[in-house]
Amino acid sequence: MRDVAVVGVGETAFGEHWEKSLRDLSVAAGVAAIRDAGIEGADIEAMYIGNMSGGRFAGQEHLAALAADQSGLVGIPSTRVEAACASGGLAFRQACLAVASGRYDIVIAAGAEKMTDLQTVDVTTTLMGAGDQEWEGWLGMSFPGLYALMARRHMYEYGTTKEQMALFSVNGHKNAVLNPNAQFRFEITVEDVLKSALVADPLRLLDCSPITDGAAAVIVASKDIAKKFKNPIWLLGSGQATDALALHDRKSLTSLRAAKIAAKQAYKQSRTVPEKIDVAEVHDCFSINGLIALEDLGFCGVGKSGKFIEEGNIKRGAAVSINTSGGLKAKGHPVGATGVSQIVEIVKQLRGDAKKRQVHADFGLTHNVGGSGATVVVNILGKDPIER
Amino acid sequence: MRDVAVVGVGETAFGEHWEKSLRDLSVAAGVAAIRDAGIEGADIEAMYIGNMSGGRFAGQEHLAALAADQSGLVGIPSTRVEAACASGGLAFRQACLAVASGRYDIVIAAGAEKMTDLQTVDVTTTLMGAGDQEWEGWLGMSFPGLYALMARRHMYEYGTTKEQMALFSVNGHKNAVLNPNAQFRFEITVEDVLKSALVADPLRLLDCSPITDGAAAVIVASKDIAKKFKNPIWLLGSGQATDALALHDRKSLTSLRAAKIAAKQAYKQSRTVPEKIDVAEVHDCFSINGLIALEDLGFCGVGKSGKFIEEGNIKRGAAVSINTSGGLKAKGHPVGATGVSQIVEIVKQLRGDAKKRQVHADFGLTHNVGGSGATVVVNILGKDPIER
Repeated sequence: MRDVAVVGVGETAFGEHWEKSLRDLSVAAGVAAIRDAGIEGADIEAMYIGNMSGGRFAGQEHLAALAADQSGLVGIPSTRVEAACASGGLAFRQACLAVASGRYDIVIAAGAEKMTDLQTVDVTTTLMGAGDQEWEGWLGMSFPGLYALMARRHMYEYGTTKEQMALFSVNGHKNAVLNPNAQFRFEITVEDVLKSALVADPLRLLDCSPITDGAAAVIVASKDIAKKFKNPIWLLGSGQATDALALHDRKSLTSLRAAKIAAKQAYKQSRTVPEKIDVAEVHDCFSINGLIALEDLGFCGVGKSGKFIEEGNIKRGAAVSINTSGGLKAKGHPVGATGVSQIVEIVKQLRGDAKKRQVHADFGLTHNVGGSGATVVVNILGKDPIER
Repeated sequence: MRDVAVVGVGETAFGEHWEKSLRDLSVAAGVAAIRDAGIEGADIEAMYIGNMSGGRFAGQEHLAALAADQSGLVGIPSTRVEAACASGGLAFRQACLAVASGRYDIVIAAGAEKMTDLQTVDVTTTLMGAGDQEWEGWLGMSFPGLYALMARRHMYEYGTTKEQMALFSVNGHKNAVLNPNAQFRFEITVEDVLKSALVADPLRLLDCSPITDGAAAVIVASKDIAKKFKNPIWLLGSGQATDALALHDRKSLTSLRAAKIAAKQAYKQSRTVPEKIDVAEVHDCFSINGLIALEDLGFCGVGKSGKFIEEGNIKRGAAVSINTSGGLKAKGHPVGATGVSQIVEIVKQLRGDAKKRQVHADFGLTHNVGGSGATVVVNILGKDPIER
């Protein structure tokens, strides 16, 4: 298999785009990535696009052909992949695999979601399709409910506090102020979080990622091609794994087994260890999932994430700069786009293109979770390819 | 890239499975394929599953993790792919690419759709998500309507008759009688078709594929592994292409550009020509699409498909045995499963396992169409690998 690098990135602003449709967002991100790479559309040989619920949100399936068509790439093979909120991470992985295989030299990976226009049911009901509909959804469970169970158990087992969880959101909002594409560009305090409306005890409104429209895209190229670009960022390792879809079938409520498997694969392939990672985008759909991510990825010990955050270790420039983009909470969470958008941020950090939120970074990691953890994708990127 | 072979196939009966859910069908097909291959679940390293509208039909997205979990394969990377009615074809292609790349040795490709239980809107509205929702669906167009336009134009340009189209359905039903997994195991006549209820002029009920529940799965392995199996069937060539999603953006209504591109790729890779294909499963979602397939795949000249059928060329054992399984019309069309089910039939024919419907076959082809032709996947399989 061949080495692969990211040679172009693009994304829309994240937020409520009442005047734009799913196709508009997809095309805007794709065009931005093509421009950033400095290539022509005709150079792109295949497309992968992550989207969770275009069918339910907008009545639109078959998004891959639509996005190719509307971007002027009609004819190329274009494939939609879906694993709930990890759809974008899978699109990136499939694009990298397609290039690594030798089948294609230049491939675009995109992710898009339009969540504000609803054709059928409400957003929370639609998102429950990411969990076990028969055994969780139809019995009244929602995603805030599932993550509330995980939070309660983490508090019970490790003494984690609401204040520690709140600090994860506080960190994201602080970073989002510096990200022009973020949905919420204002700071919040722990007190703001603890006073915000209760959603599913112990999770409050400011523990929860918002409803967002947005899209992101990256151009992936083979080693020989990538070397001709100014600033290629290399995929050093990638892992993908699954777990039981229903939370009640899991062995643990306080750790995602799929994240640990995926992280192990990514660290091994990339010949890195958690201590080498400078910057990471982790999947804080709810604040508790940010804490669990820190433990599953090995940034801190099991049950120690609350303390780790309290001690300032996730701030920009600290032990590991977490969610410099603002993360799902503050940058926003257009579910199908999130995994690709995480790659966009890490590439910008590794290139030195992250402007006011730039940190020193040689190695970056993305952690993208589907549903309550039944799919997890972990990627590790770096400034230089691995010498093999 | 490495050669790839199919070493196991399985499927459920196609029909109305009121007592089975999407997960039940997925698992049943997967288990059947694993048993057919004579392997253990633990031998499978990754899964791809094609499904069009689990979200809209059953409220269930994230099917890849669910299918892996419920099949006892929890942990492995599992990816849902979607391109409307070509979702199954894409799942097979991605599985083959994953093995060809060298990343995995044994991968399962599945397809599943549960269309009889509806959570939100009716089937025809849901299926319109395969077309351009904004510019076709919301203006009142349906899939029978789109294919009716194509049929009318084919009749206008080439003098194709309703009787000739009806013969495509007659052929499928005749074959389905011999397929224990087919939904409609009875013969029909041209007169039956012409007397059936008008759906979208000139298409009548018996020109249209039915609403079906079902699933199919195949096990794909690398050359070295496959050689250890009793009767591996080799993927010789595979093509995938896109076209404009909306019919009004196409250059032709009587030919699918994506089918021609995909077929060209598959013929070239497989070093075959249309004349060498003995048996083909083509995507007759509506009878007219069967006719167009014969032309796009090069089995007959442009505009000559009606005559070609009339002269008996698509019957079992004739010039090319078309839809020995019964095809979408008579075997049934659980949209996400169809592309994989086509592979199942071709593998059975090439193995000599097709029992009463067996034809002489050295080379077989599958033709899987998404929507009104915006995605097409063509695969060519054979008894022996290509000597490279």
